[in-house]
Amino acid sequence: MNVVTISREFGSGGREVGKRLADALGYAYYDTEIIDLIAKKAGMDKNYVSTVLESSPSYAIHFGATFSAIPLYDNATQVLVAQREVFEELMSKGNCIIVGRGASCLLNKDNVFSIFVYADEKTKVERCLARDTTHTETEKSIKKMIKRIDRNRRHYHETYFGVEWGRKENYDIAINTSGMEIKKIIPGLAAYVKGYFENK
Amino acid sequence: MNVVTISREFGSGGREVGKRLADALGYAYYDTEIIDLIAKKAGMDKNYVSTVLESSPSYAIHFGATFSAIPLYDNATQVLVAQREVFEELMSKGNCIIVGRGASCLLNKDNVFSIFVYADEKTKVERCLARDTTHTETEKSIKKMIKRIDRNRRHYHETYFGVEWGRKENYDIAINTSGMEIKKIIPGLAAYVKGYFENK
Repeated sequence: MNVVTISREFGSGGREVGKRLADALGYAYYDTEIIDLIAKKAGMDKNYVSTVLESSPSYAIHFGATFSAIPLYDNATQVLVAQREVFEELMSKGNCIIVGRGASCLLNKDNVFSIFVYADEKTKVERCLARDTTHTETEKSIKKMIKRIDRNRRHYHETYFGVEWGRKENYDIAINTSGMEIKKIIPGLAAYVKGYFENK
Repeated sequence: MNVVTISREFGSGGREVGKRLADALGYAYYDTEIIDLIAKKAGMDKNYVSTVLESSPSYAIHFGATFSAIPLYDNATQVLVAQREVFEELMSKGNCIIVGRGASCLLNKDNVFSIFVYADEKTKVERCLARDTTHTETEKSIKKMIKRIDRNRRHYHETYFGVEWGRKENYDIAINTSGMEIKKIIPGLAAYVKGYFENK
């Protein structure tokens, strides 16, 4: 089965890229529902799972530490194990696109095409303001949110996977959506993904 | 007119991407001949032009230095001026693809789609060995060559344009050709470029 993973800067349009690409390729699309599936599998509260996956870890993992200081098998590890199992189950069902949740780090690389989506700050702020239906956000509050969320994503990847989030070498393609209308880039991206899997 | 610029790590297949993409899009393709055109325009020896464009600058440009220490209008600057003029003339002739020579930094961004091509070391070494028809290179010599050439490209961009070479934010797309057969990625890339210019 083929899997496309999408990692993205907050506000870069990564989720829209994922949804539209899934439609174009006829792949299943998984995003926030992954949290529910992991929570169910791990037998944990979904708010806790969400905290592990989306917040900056509040402690460092020290492999050199003594067992008395660091639990060998803690709750966060259980989430990671459940997460990997959920991804493997989703893959086994058929071709799919997974947005976020560290999928690009957790899946076997062979059947995976990994995309990183980024954009300049101006574009990201505009996109976030456009989808703020409550009209409570300001340019300043959005900029702060972008910084905080992306910092958490970076910390999450570094802490759990030892991977530099956003470093192009860790992805098959990195696309800049600055000033772009997302739907216009989908036919090309879909064709690129098809070419990649034909290459394998 | 639309211009596609291709910057690339040595051995990443960037030149092949450029040639095949030009064929797929029906664009003109410019690569090493640019050196001749610049030399002719600047009235300089093409070996000198080549040295300026492809070697690590042997001196730093200090804008704060006194005029007595640094010539106001030196030969390297003349090359840069000629280079920009050559690019603009090529653009005015019609849609084209320009490989290397700092084109992504020198051209007006509005009509330019910029690509960065990269790959893992294993792939780059294999590609270089495969095209070494003299059979005089070794894995070790190739690795040294890759390092040297890419270091020069990085220095050239930093010194003349103040731009970090290879940083994804400086390009519209960055593509990883590790283990890939270049021709398989061209239809997708061509479709992506078309989508980009329709977006503008």
